[in-house]
Amino acid sequence: MSHRSMLTAIVIDVPGEQRPDEVAFWSGATGKDFVRLHYPEYHGARLTSTLVMLVQELGEGAPRVHLDLHTDDVDAEVARLTALGASEVERRPDWAVMRDPAGLPFCVVRARPGELDDGPAITWP
Amino acid sequence: MSHRSMLTAIVIDVPGEQRPDEVAFWSGATGKDFVRLHYPEYHGARLTSTLVMLVQELGEGAPRVHLDLHTDDVDAEVARLTALGASEVERRPDWAVMRDPAGLPFCVVRARPGELDDGPAITWP
Repeated sequence: MSHRSMLTAIVIDVPGEQRPDEVAFWSGATGKDFVRLHYPEYHGARLTSTLVMLVQELGEGAPRVHLDLHTDDVDAEVARLTALGASEVERRPDWAVMRDPAGLPFCVVRARPGELDDGPAITWP
Repeated sequence: MSHRSMLTAIVIDVPGEQRPDEVAFWSGATGKDFVRLHYPEYHGARLTSTLVMLVQELGEGAPRVHLDLHTDDVDAEVARLTALGASEVERRPDWAVMRDPAGLPFCVVRARPGELDDGPAITWP
């Protein structure tokens, strides 16, 4: 059965004490209003019709940038990316944390219904 | 005088020995053919009409993700971002390396002629 996926988000991870400055900076830099999301650790803004930018408050760890892929089938996408050389770090029903071949973390996240219907999402056989 | 800028690139920085695996992985993950660019340290692919993804071979340092902003006036954009809280790390005629308030590196790069004419680039007064 086929599934779909697309790179949909750039996420800036920062410790809590740096969050306000980081939200203010990237809001100014991109000219987009970063608003607090339903999940309280995130602020976000839509940059284009297919790309959002998020600032996430990290519980621990140094600041970093990571990418999110959205998919209509997390299991299938995790399996596809594992076959390409990624490794699974943490798995939940609606998302997975993975590492690419260089060890960089990225996330695979269940898309909202209809999210991938339009735009440049790719269908994998 | 006004100028324009836009977030245009996601750049994966990796040491040389990890470059082939990283190019192959992100090509497979995004379904886009990453090709070697005019600047030999880069492979890249266009993800959407306004966003490219690059894999850059680093001379040193740990793997990381950084962002590029393109602009028609590097001096004006560096000054604007400095006023927002970024700091300048390195300055060349056509580009600058900066750090955001959390210390994350990003680049400001002179746009190709016409690159920012269409799409969601923002005009700054």
